[in-house]
Amino acid sequence: MENIKDKVAIVGVGCTKFGENFDMSYKDMIVKAAVEAFNDAGVEPQQIEAAWLGTAFPEMQAGQGRSGESLIEALLLKYIPVTKIANYCCTGSDAFRNACFAVASGMYDIVLVVGVEKMRDVPPRESLVSQSVLTGHPLVSKGLTAPGQFALTANRYFHEYGIDRSYIAKIAVKNHHNGFLNPKAYLRYEVTEEEVLNAPIMAYPLGLLDCTAVDDGCAAIILTTSKLAPNFRDDFVLVKAVSLCVDQGRSILFDNNYSFIEFKATQKAAKIAYEQAGIKDPLKEIDLAEVHDCFTITEIVNYEDLGFCKKGEGGRFIADGISTLEGKLPVNPSGGLKANGHPIGATGVRQLYEVTTHLQGRAGERQVKNCKIGLTHTLGGAATIACVSILGARD
Amino acid sequence: MENIKDKVAIVGVGCTKFGENFDMSYKDMIVKAAVEAFNDAGVEPQQIEAAWLGTAFPEMQAGQGRSGESLIEALLLKYIPVTKIANYCCTGSDAFRNACFAVASGMYDIVLVVGVEKMRDVPPRESLVSQSVLTGHPLVSKGLTAPGQFALTANRYFHEYGIDRSYIAKIAVKNHHNGFLNPKAYLRYEVTEEEVLNAPIMAYPLGLLDCTAVDDGCAAIILTTSKLAPNFRDDFVLVKAVSLCVDQGRSILFDNNYSFIEFKATQKAAKIAYEQAGIKDPLKEIDLAEVHDCFTITEIVNYEDLGFCKKGEGGRFIADGISTLEGKLPVNPSGGLKANGHPIGATGVRQLYEVTTHLQGRAGERQVKNCKIGLTHTLGGAATIACVSILGARD
Repeated sequence: MENIKDKVAIVGVGCTKFGENFDMSYKDMIVKAAVEAFNDAGVEPQQIEAAWLGTAFPEMQAGQGRSGESLIEALLLKYIPVTKIANYCCTGSDAFRNACFAVASGMYDIVLVVGVEKMRDVPPRESLVSQSVLTGHPLVSKGLTAPGQFALTANRYFHEYGIDRSYIAKIAVKNHHNGFLNPKAYLRYEVTEEEVLNAPIMAYPLGLLDCTAVDDGCAAIILTTSKLAPNFRDDFVLVKAVSLCVDQGRSILFDNNYSFIEFKATQKAAKIAYEQAGIKDPLKEIDLAEVHDCFTITEIVNYEDLGFCKKGEGGRFIADGISTLEGKLPVNPSGGLKANGHPIGATGVRQLYEVTTHLQGRAGERQVKNCKIGLTHTLGGAATIACVSILGARD
Repeated sequence: MENIKDKVAIVGVGCTKFGENFDMSYKDMIVKAAVEAFNDAGVEPQQIEAAWLGTAFPEMQAGQGRSGESLIEALLLKYIPVTKIANYCCTGSDAFRNACFAVASGMYDIVLVVGVEKMRDVPPRESLVSQSVLTGHPLVSKGLTAPGQFALTANRYFHEYGIDRSYIAKIAVKNHHNGFLNPKAYLRYEVTEEEVLNAPIMAYPLGLLDCTAVDDGCAAIILTTSKLAPNFRDDFVLVKAVSLCVDQGRSILFDNNYSFIEFKATQKAAKIAYEQAGIKDPLKEIDLAEVHDCFTITEIVNYEDLGFCKKGEGGRFIADGISTLEGKLPVNPSGGLKANGHPIGATGVRQLYEVTTHLQGRAGERQVKNCKIGLTHTLGGAATIACVSILGARD
């Protein structure tokens, strides 16, 4: 088995503002992000040979995103192949992964990846949680919502490693600070540790400011072969690795061996990605990362699962400032899911957009200095699906 | 741009019985089809490096098939990547297409493709049509259901080319005959032309026996590189072409240039597939085909769109017996959607299962004689998404 390292390159990226995009429809957002990516790459829409569309919950957006048709209709492209992918919170990342395979196979030279989700047009009674309660979901209807599940992780983690709410609060402080510098973020305000600690409790120990928000957004990427990439731009970005790992579903919560404080899907996906990219010491070799901070505790567990630090040292990692914009390994320079919200299908592609702009030195006020290698990570399902990608600046 | 011709091979296939599988759950069906494919290929489940799952409507099966988790849980595999694909009636075919790219890219050596859908467990009030009516779909709620749309095609086709209901009835007669010979088919009975003509009208001129049925089913395929294929079996089957084409959504019905009697998505997907496979004269070079006969009229239009005959000659094609089991180009030897029903995500993979077994000379009573090259075709959305694959027996 070979791998796809350095076979595929990113030559254009685009992204809408994330948030309550009541002024843009699902298709408007696709147009906005894709046209930005076309312009960024200097390609005409007609040059796109194939596309991948990531949308996780078509039933929240009037059925849009059930198939590739939604992308074609938005962009008025016709007669190209469009694959629609859904994989919970890894939806956008997995659309990117499959597009990489298609380019690496030699089948297509120029392809488009779009991740999009519109979650704020749906009234609360039709939300995912309400639907699960109404249909009598055996876990969600008894309170094991996403905050409920990650609260179990936080409580157990606190018990095992002796940290308290002040540590996870520091994640919110850092990510809101970064998001404040990001013009496309949703919740663009600074928060203090005190504000995070005093916010209303959602599922103890997680308060309102420990949680991501549900919102609308879209991001787009143009891929080509690394051979053709110099025809588009000098500062193209190389795909060093793409890796997906699926553990199991919510049944994992009934597994007597489940520890609640580590996510094996992330560990395995990272291991494979590091092998592909030839990375031996992530903390030394990775210059920035966008990781799945659906809740503040998740980011701390991610540090450990991604090998940035040892098990139990995630609290120290944030307290020591290692993951701040000025730290040794800045994490979530975009503000993460914390400040951008989490339109499910869009998040993974937004992360790749973010890392690409940093590797190209054009990330504005939040630019991570001297970065050559960046990582993205999404975590979905019952923290049982993980996708890790590694990008590298052109040598 | 190169292509993937002869880079990928099928080394194992499996398929459940199609029909009202009340005795099997969604996951039971996955186990049944996948284990049959494992045994057929002589691989252990642990050898599978990655998988693709095709399910179009998770909300009809208690949310199963929203992500790759459902496949992992069914097979008790852990920690492999599973991509979930949805693309209306091309769902299973597109899952196969993406798996082919991943193998051709060099990323994986042995992968699994599963197409599955369970549509008979849902009470009629929760069916797709009912949901569309309840939510006020602008077309479906006014009668433009699938039979409604294809009735427009049939009426216009009759008007343009002077055939009548007796021609489309011959499609039903042929496909029920083939299905009668297929132990895994759903509606295993012969019908006469008279019975088809006298069946209750669904949407004129389409009667009950002109329509496919909604049902349950699952099919599975094991893919490897053509280099490794001889390690698994002598009679592996080569992938000669995979092609997907997306036109647009239901808005096509408001397009003044839409003719109703041809499906451009099929035409374009076929053209690209023929180029990939190096096929110049489909009627001469293709030995059998499984095509999307969601309604009898659709099969006639498919003959033309796939280039088996000229425009307007599809009626003659069936009347002359060219597409019967003993004809020059047998079409739907399995019985097609007509006799197998149409569990959306499963159909495309079932077609590939069927063609593979014929190319290997083990299709039983319905075996097509002396076949070397076979084609599969699915058509989805508002007849606006088409997927064409071409398989070849080992030289």
